[in-house]
Amino acid sequence: MTDLKCFFGETVKFYRNRIGLSQEKFALKINIDRTYLASVEKGKRNISIENIHKIIRGLNISFSDFFQKMEELEVANGNKGIKKKG
Amino acid sequence: MTDLKCFFGETVKFYRNRIGLSQEKFALKINIDRTYLASVEKGKRNISIENIHKIIRGLNISFSDFFQKMEELEVANGNKGIKKKG
Repeated sequence: MTDLKCFFGETVKFYRNRIGLSQEKFALKINIDRTYLASVEKGKRNISIENIHKIIRGLNISFSDFFQKMEELEVANGNKGIKKKG
Repeated sequence: MTDLKCFFGETVKFYRNRIGLSQEKFALKINIDRTYLASVEKGKRNISIENIHKIIRGLNISFSDFFQKMEELEVANGNKGIKKKG
Protein backbone atom coordinates (compact mmCIF):
# COMPACT_ATOMS: atom_id res chain seq x y z
CA MET A 1 0.00 0.00 0.00
CA THR A 2 2.88 2.35 0.75
CA ASP A 3 4.21 1.82 -2.76
CA LEU A 4 0.89 2.84 -4.24
CA LYS A 5 0.89 6.11 -2.33
CA CYS A 6 4.51 6.74 -3.32
CA PHE A 7 3.79 6.19 -7.00
CA PHE A 8 0.72 8.38 -6.70
CA GLY A 9 2.83 11.14 -5.18
CA GLU A 10 5.53 10.77 -7.82
CA THR A 11 2.90 11.15 -10.51
CA VAL A 12 1.54 14.34 -8.97
CA LYS A 13 5.08 15.70 -8.84
CA PHE A 14 5.74 14.69 -12.47
CA TYR A 15 2.68 16.52 -13.78
CA ARG A 16 3.14 19.49 -11.45
CA ASN A 17 6.68 19.95 -12.77
CA ARG A 18 5.36 19.65 -16.32
CA ILE A 19 3.09 22.64 -15.82
CA GLY A 20 6.00 24.47 -14.18
CA LEU A 21 4.44 25.28 -10.83
CA SER A 22 6.11 25.08 -7.44
CA GLN A 23 4.32 23.14 -4.68
CA GLU A 24 3.34 26.46 -3.18
CA LYS A 25 1.84 27.89 -6.36
CA PHE A 26 0.08 24.69 -7.31
CA ALA A 27 -1.37 24.29 -3.79
CA LEU A 28 -2.62 27.86 -3.96
CA LYS A 29 -4.11 27.28 -7.42
CA ILE A 30 -6.12 24.25 -6.32
CA ASN A 31 -6.87 25.61 -2.88
CA ILE A 32 -5.25 22.94 -0.73
CA ASP A 33 -2.66 23.33 2.00
CA ARG A 34 0.94 23.32 0.77
CA THR A 35 2.11 20.99 3.54
CA TYR A 36 -0.70 18.60 2.68
CA LEU A 37 0.35 18.63 -1.00
CA ALA A 38 3.97 18.02 0.06
CA SER A 39 2.96 14.99 2.12
CA VAL A 40 0.86 13.64 -0.77
CA GLU A 41 3.86 13.93 -3.08
CA LYS A 42 5.98 12.09 -0.51
CA GLY A 43 3.49 9.20 -0.50
CA LYS A 44 2.43 9.81 3.07
CA ARG A 45 -1.30 10.35 2.61
CA ASN A 46 -4.22 8.01 2.07
CA ILE A 47 -5.78 10.66 -0.15
CA SER A 48 -9.51 10.68 -0.88
CA ILE A 49 -11.12 10.73 -4.31
CA GLU A 50 -12.31 14.32 -3.85
CA ASN A 51 -8.77 15.52 -3.20
CA ILE A 52 -7.47 13.36 -6.07
CA HIS A 53 -10.07 15.13 -8.22
CA LYS A 54 -8.89 18.58 -7.09
CA ILE A 55 -5.30 17.71 -7.98
CA ILE A 56 -6.07 16.10 -11.33
CA ARG A 57 -8.35 18.95 -12.34
CA GLY A 58 -5.64 21.43 -11.39
CA LEU A 59 -3.18 19.53 -13.58
CA ASN A 60 -5.54 19.80 -16.56
CA ILE A 61 -5.40 16.11 -17.29
CA SER A 62 -7.86 13.22 -17.12
CA PHE A 63 -8.00 10.54 -14.45
CA SER A 64 -7.04 7.90 -17.01
CA ASP A 65 -4.01 9.91 -18.21
CA PHE A 66 -2.91 10.39 -14.63
CA PHE A 67 -3.15 6.72 -13.70
CA GLN A 68 -1.60 5.59 -16.96
CA LYS A 69 1.45 7.68 -16.10
CA MET A 70 1.41 6.26 -12.56
CA GLU A 71 1.46 2.74 -14.01
CA GLU A 72 4.35 3.71 -16.29
CA LEU A 73 6.35 4.95 -13.31
CA GLU A 74 5.53 1.75 -11.49
CA VAL A 75 6.68 -0.44 -14.39
CA ALA A 76 9.83 1.67 -14.73
CA ASN A 77 10.48 0.86 -11.08
CA GLY A 78 9.90 -2.84 -11.62
CA ASN A 79 6.93 -3.05 -9.27
CA LYS A 80 4.10 -5.11 -10.66
CA GLY A 81 2.07 -4.96 -7.48
CA ILE A 82 -0.11 -1.95 -8.22
CA LYS A 83 -1.48 -2.51 -11.68
CA LYS A 84 -2.54 -6.12 -11.48
CA LYS A 85 -3.69 -8.34 -8.69
CA GLY A 86 -0.69 -9.94 -7.04
CA MET B 1 -17.99 16.34 -6.49
CA THR B 2 -21.12 14.29 -5.98
CA ASP B 3 -21.15 13.43 -9.68
CA LEU B 4 -17.59 12.16 -9.45
CA LYS B 5 -18.47 9.80 -6.62
CA CYS B 6 -21.56 8.62 -8.49
CA PHE B 7 -19.58 7.84 -11.64
CA PHE B 8 -16.96 6.12 -9.51
CA GLY B 9 -19.66 3.95 -7.95
CA GLU B 10 -21.24 3.17 -11.30
CA THR B 11 -17.87 2.02 -12.59
CA VAL B 12 -17.34 -0.30 -9.63
CA LYS B 13 -20.79 -1.76 -10.26
CA PHE B 14 -20.10 -2.17 -13.98
CA TYR B 15 -16.90 -4.14 -13.41
CA ARG B 16 -18.33 -6.10 -10.48
CA ASN B 17 -21.20 -7.22 -12.68
CA ARG B 18 -18.75 -8.12 -15.42
CA ILE B 19 -16.99 -10.58 -13.11
CA GLY B 20 -20.41 -11.88 -12.06
CA LEU B 21 -20.16 -11.34 -8.31
CA SER B 22 -22.87 -10.03 -6.01
CA GLN B 23 -22.02 -7.12 -3.72
CA GLU B 24 -21.84 -9.59 -0.88
CA LYS B 25 -19.45 -11.98 -2.62
CA PHE B 26 -17.25 -9.22 -3.97
CA ALA B 27 -17.07 -7.49 -0.57
CA LEU B 28 -16.07 -10.80 1.00
CA LYS B 29 -13.45 -11.39 -1.70
CA ILE B 30 -11.74 -8.05 -1.14
CA ASN B 31 -12.30 -8.04 2.60
CA ILE B 32 -14.41 -4.90 2.95
CA ASP B 33 -17.80 -4.44 4.56
CA ARG B 34 -20.75 -5.10 2.24
CA THR B 35 -22.66 -2.02 3.39
CA TYR B 36 -19.55 0.08 2.76
CA LEU B 37 -19.27 -1.34 -0.76
CA ALA B 38 -22.97 -0.62 -1.33
CA SER B 39 -22.54 3.00 -0.28
CA VAL B 40 -19.48 3.36 -2.54
CA GLU B 41 -21.51 2.04 -5.49
CA LYS B 42 -24.26 4.55 -4.65
CA GLY B 43 -21.73 7.41 -4.80
CA LYS B 44 -22.00 8.19 -1.12
CA ARG B 45 -18.39 7.75 -0.05
CA ASN B 46 -15.33 9.92 -0.34
CA ILE B 47 -13.27 6.77 -0.79
CA SER B 48 -9.52 6.74 -0.13
CA ILE B 49 -6.85 5.57 -2.53
CA GLU B 50 -6.14 2.47 -0.41
CA ASN B 51 -9.74 1.35 -0.65
CA ILE B 52 -9.84 2.24 -4.36
CA HIS B 53 -6.79 0.00 -4.70
CA LYS B 54 -8.51 -2.88 -2.88
CA ILE B 55 -11.50 -2.64 -5.21
CA ILE B 56 -9.52 -2.27 -8.43
CA ARG B 57 -7.22 -5.14 -7.50
CA GLY B 58 -10.26 -7.27 -6.72
CA LEU B 59 -11.70 -6.49 -10.14
CA ASN B 60 -8.47 -7.65 -11.81
CA ILE B 61 -8.08 -4.47 -13.82
CA SER B 62 -5.64 -1.58 -13.86
CA PHE B 63 -6.26 1.89 -12.44
CA SER B 64 -6.10 3.38 -15.95
CA ASP B 65 -8.64 0.88 -17.32
CA PHE B 66 -10.95 1.63 -14.42
CA PHE B 67 -10.80 5.39 -14.85
CA GLN B 68 -11.06 5.19 -18.62
CA LYS B 69 -14.34 3.35 -18.17
CA MET B 70 -15.43 5.94 -15.61
CA GLU B 71 -14.77 8.69 -18.14
CA GLU B 72 -16.72 6.78 -20.78
CA LEU B 73 -19.71 6.57 -18.44
CA GLU B 74 -19.37 10.27 -17.73
CA VAL B 75 -19.28 11.18 -21.43
CA ALA B 76 -22.26 8.89 -22.06
CA ASN B 77 -24.07 10.91 -19.40
CA GLY B 78 -23.09 14.21 -21.00
CA ASN B 79 -21.14 15.43 -18.00
CA LYS B 80 -17.85 17.05 -18.94
CA GLY B 81 -17.09 18.21 -15.43
CA ILE B 82 -14.99 15.30 -14.22
CA LYS B 83 -12.47 14.69 -16.96
CA LYS B 84 -11.30 18.21 -17.70
CA LYS B 85 -11.03 21.34 -15.66
CA GLY B 86 -14.29 23.24 -15.86
